Amino acid sequence: MAAARVLLHDYWRSSASFRVRIALALKGIAYERAPVDLVAGVQHGAAHRALNPQGLVPVLEIDGLRLTQSLAILEYLEETRPEPPLLPRDAGARAHVRALALAIACEIHPVSNLAVLARVERLAGSEARAAWNRDNIAEGLAAFEQMLDHPGFAGRFCHGEQPGLADCVLIPQLYNAARWGVAFGHLPRISVVARACETVPAFAEAHPDKFDPSRETKGIQGEKP
Amino acid sequence: MAAARVLLHDYWRSSASFRVRIALALKGIAYERAPVDLVAGVQHGAAHRALNPQGLVPVLEIDGLRLTQSLAILEYLEETRPEPPLLPRDAGARAHVRALALAIACEIHPVSNLAVLARVERLAGSEARAAWNRDNIAEGLAAFEQMLDHPGFAGRFCHGEQPGLADCVLIPQLYNAARWGVAFGHLPRISVVARACETVPAFAEAHPDKFDPSRETKGIQGEKP
Repeated sequence: MAAARVLLHDYWRSSASFRVRIALALKGIAYERAPVDLVAGVQHGAAHRALNPQGLVPVLEIDGLRLTQSLAILEYLEETRPEPPLLPRDAGARAHVRALALAIACEIHPVSNLAVLARVERLAGSEARAAWNRDNIAEGLAAFEQMLDHPGFAGRFCHGEQPGLADCVLIPQLYNAARWGVAFGHLPRISVVARACETVPAFAEAHPDKFDPSRETKGIQGEKP
Repeated sequence: MAAARVLLHDYWRSSASFRVRIALALKGIAYERAPVDLVAGVQHGAAHRALNPQGLVPVLEIDGLRLTQSLAILEYLEETRPEPPLLPRDAGARAHVRALALAIACEIHPVSNLAVLARVERLAGSEARAAWNRDNIAEGLAAFEQMLDHPGFAGRFCHGEQPGLADCVLIPQLYNAARWGVAFGHLPRISVVARACETVPAFAEAHPDKFDPSRETKGIQGEKP
């Protein structure tokens, strides 16, 4: 594999971007960032649409490819840089880990994205928007907690003894939950996973706080000032 | 692989169920169905929640496992029954096909699911609900059309010369678009794929019309009357 430049187009607070940053850090892949300001609407401009017709982040440029959709990117990294693995070996266990990731990526996250919440606010006001978002996250995490009641849960990460694909998706969702005031301390398995991931440097290295453009972030790997 | 019973808990009109039925048919896997009436709310009952804590369909019982989340199920089928393949061999091409599938599964479908639409209707009425759904599908398909502008699109299926993972996800979304009066005839690549899939028996065998409980469906494989 040529050691060519790896470039991540992301937004510091975007959950999908955070997922990819965690995976890159877990696999020890050096990268540069090209921040896309979602609040300023840069993702809707022609320049970003040329990178990603969906007008979303992240976009990862790697190996001469331009990849979109965070879970497809994680699978690509797993296939091309298999160590350390993000998925277990057993097909049934892989299906369970993918289902955990998709339970967030396909059920919680899309219903709480910026565009959907803005539309709810236009229809019914800001209180309705906040309630929509809180209910969606709380219901989704409650279901996720039940999904962790599985033989693969060893009381540490979402599956087994090492962080993997599901943890890459859960931790950004928990960051998002905290931002919106949705508690998850009453969910014991999720709380265990959150604490386990706090001990893994890759999760801290990928954290949005490291990339907050309002902070001094000199010295962060690949960060553009 | 033991030829044990394969049981699909699904709902005839559910897009996610339709995806799995297509994949099972493409791979020639015989199965029985256990219909879950989403309109009657059966998915929220304790019996179904015991099968799937998310209260969703499909659930696939196979190889002694109980699998949820349609894309995780498709990946499992691909890993355990690789022929015919749903994904290309090349990692970059696989990432593109997965991104196409996720562009629908993570962006269009969740924002138009029954629970979300019911919530929109409670907030803002039935006209707002219909407009929400039409806009969401139309915008999502327009982005998908642009994503098909890719070297992997050979003017037949979403990628290459055989139906695969992205087609399993697109065709149910097009069925859904048609139900809600969202046209896609002006999107040339999507229209080409729709016509190509019409020529593949697996798509017809998996179609919701075959499983409409209001119709006489005797003789359909595994169908419970």
